[in-house]
Amino acid sequence: MTFEQRLHDLVASVNEPDVTFEAAAWQRLDSLTKPPRSLGKLETIAARVATLQRTAHPAVAPMAIVLMAGDHGVTAQGVSPYPPEVTAQMVANFSAGGAAINQLARHAGARLVLVDVGVAGDVSGIDGVVHAKVRPGTADFSTGPAMSREEAAEAVLVGVRVAQELAEEGVRLVGTGEMGIGNSTAAAALTAAYCGADPGGVVGAGTGLDAAGVERKARVIAHALQVNDVARLDALGVLAAVGGLEIAGLAGVFIGCASAGLPVVSDGFIAGAAALAAVNLCPAASGYLFPSHRSAEPGHGTVLGALGLTPVLELDMRLGEGTGAALAMDIMAAACEVMSGMATFASAGVSGSGE
Amino acid sequence: MTFEQRLHDLVASVNEPDVTFEAAAWQRLDSLTKPPRSLGKLETIAARVATLQRTAHPAVAPMAIVLMAGDHGVTAQGVSPYPPEVTAQMVANFSAGGAAINQLARHAGARLVLVDVGVAGDVSGIDGVVHAKVRPGTADFSTGPAMSREEAAEAVLVGVRVAQELAEEGVRLVGTGEMGIGNSTAAAALTAAYCGADPGGVVGAGTGLDAAGVERKARVIAHALQVNDVARLDALGVLAAVGGLEIAGLAGVFIGCASAGLPVVSDGFIAGAAALAAVNLCPAASGYLFPSHRSAEPGHGTVLGALGLTPVLELDMRLGEGTGAALAMDIMAAACEVMSGMATFASAGVSGSGE
Repeated sequence: MTFEQRLHDLVASVNEPDVTFEAAAWQRLDSLTKPPRSLGKLETIAARVATLQRTAHPAVAPMAIVLMAGDHGVTAQGVSPYPPEVTAQMVANFSAGGAAINQLARHAGARLVLVDVGVAGDVSGIDGVVHAKVRPGTADFSTGPAMSREEAAEAVLVGVRVAQELAEEGVRLVGTGEMGIGNSTAAAALTAAYCGADPGGVVGAGTGLDAAGVERKARVIAHALQVNDVARLDALGVLAAVGGLEIAGLAGVFIGCASAGLPVVSDGFIAGAAALAAVNLCPAASGYLFPSHRSAEPGHGTVLGALGLTPVLELDMRLGEGTGAALAMDIMAAACEVMSGMATFASAGVSGSGE
Repeated sequence: MTFEQRLHDLVASVNEPDVTFEAAAWQRLDSLTKPPRSLGKLETIAARVATLQRTAHPAVAPMAIVLMAGDHGVTAQGVSPYPPEVTAQMVANFSAGGAAINQLARHAGARLVLVDVGVAGDVSGIDGVVHAKVRPGTADFSTGPAMSREEAAEAVLVGVRVAQELAEEGVRLVGTGEMGIGNSTAAAALTAAYCGADPGGVVGAGTGLDAAGVERKARVIAHALQVNDVARLDALGVLAAVGGLEIAGLAGVFIGCASAGLPVVSDGFIAGAAALAAVNLCPAASGYLFPSHRSAEPGHGTVLGALGLTPVLELDMRLGEGTGAALAMDIMAAACEVMSGMATFASAGVSGSGE
């Protein structure tokens, strides 16, 4: 059976969330010692998690953040101010605990799961990395497809497997993160392709391009969309043509969480593009998806709009790695603790309104 | 010496923050393994805390949230859907751990300090309450001043003392919270008086008034501003005329933290009005103030604008108690952990941009 056939079968087995518990979740929230709905988005989050978990006392620990790394052939076109070897160097930094995501994952109480799904360099000697390299970086998608359909499907299935293993281990909330020099170009290309958006409207500075660099990036993407004739491609075809290996892997994490019934948190623009790929491949996955923050990258607004999601945080962040997901997961944990730990008006002997 | 004279002397001793460390803080942040400034507001927060603490490795633990409770005579005018006895009932709920703030303070790792600065009912038998009642609730400010200048100054000094004691105990970040049925009316009256705003533009539903109730609340406030002739009053006079005991107490917490050099976090609309009173009493206090969230109460926007602050969070919350402060303190802790714990490009062997 091909990877594509296996993915097809898996997608067919994913169900939309059962929402029969939702009314009971809100009944519990409205019984707690606070004016009804006065905790705003915290209550909306807690109600969604409670509904997925079918309990009035939701909890998200233990949590894990899956950080997928991969390289991008399109860096040959000068779309990033950082050299491609930084991807492998940062994998070593993640392993050693020196990156931003290490601090934020620890702060949130989430385990970090590092996955090499397509780093160009050799990271086999680095501790704590899940080795699942599909190929050492994509091809330059400005001259042809980034990878084959089979490679894209294989990378998606890597993410599915990681998510399903976490679910089997008892993880109750999964976050997503990525590392890959050049991947804001792939994310912008995917966003343009899936949403029919103009490349100029979805590109940004990434890790720090100047205005001329951003213009060049938009031209590279416009050319790539044409060369790959993306308008005639299906969801997997688009992902193979102008995606990335770590983006395909994260799309698999979203689908894998949905197949296991787990809530899953998107990060910024690149993980958001992976979520977009996931719901194009598997529409039922959207019911398990929680947005974290609104990235400073302009294309992320297009992604969030297409997904119909309003993020929890707006902190002008644009780092990736799962940093926004980690902060939002911490708030989701707090929201669940509020719902599970608070007293009711009746139990605390507090008078209600209008009594 | 009168309370007012003691407050005057204290205010004169408060200095604006020393910002000489600011450049070194940004130098450290820009050396860490991430594109410069890519963590957005997290970096701004960490730099501010680092500057106040004069270290490149800031930390905010141990943290405390001061929750001041007081009652309001203006509830006689039907400005809240909840009966006034809920203030004392909620103090018991805070003590027993059943309120939203208990869950969120525990989540953030912050100690909760409960202070009775003016509850109408007797809460002397409730465990863990700092007893500093200035008077059992304010007078109805729609017919005359809520309290005397001396009572207002005494309540401010209660907050100053609580903040200074926390600083002496080693607390490094203080949050603010409040409980007091009717206090969104006092907060709106203070906002209108300090900002010269129209009462109709700064009132909201509070704990859940309907449209007619909100209109009535605005009329009560407009009448109170006239009866008390607030335009001719100084900052302490306004606080005494249309403030509240817990609001005055929190104003003291802001001033006390400034006097001790500690960063201090405002909560929503009511704690925000207290911050507004604090900077009107003591302009130097503003340099120590960190906003948390933007409340769903419309008047909070006016308060934040007057303070020149952009909040960290926008979660449509409108509960008070310090709930927004607790969530923001957790993010501030994360920001400091990022700044203190990350590797530099040099130490991690990661290539920089354009190399």
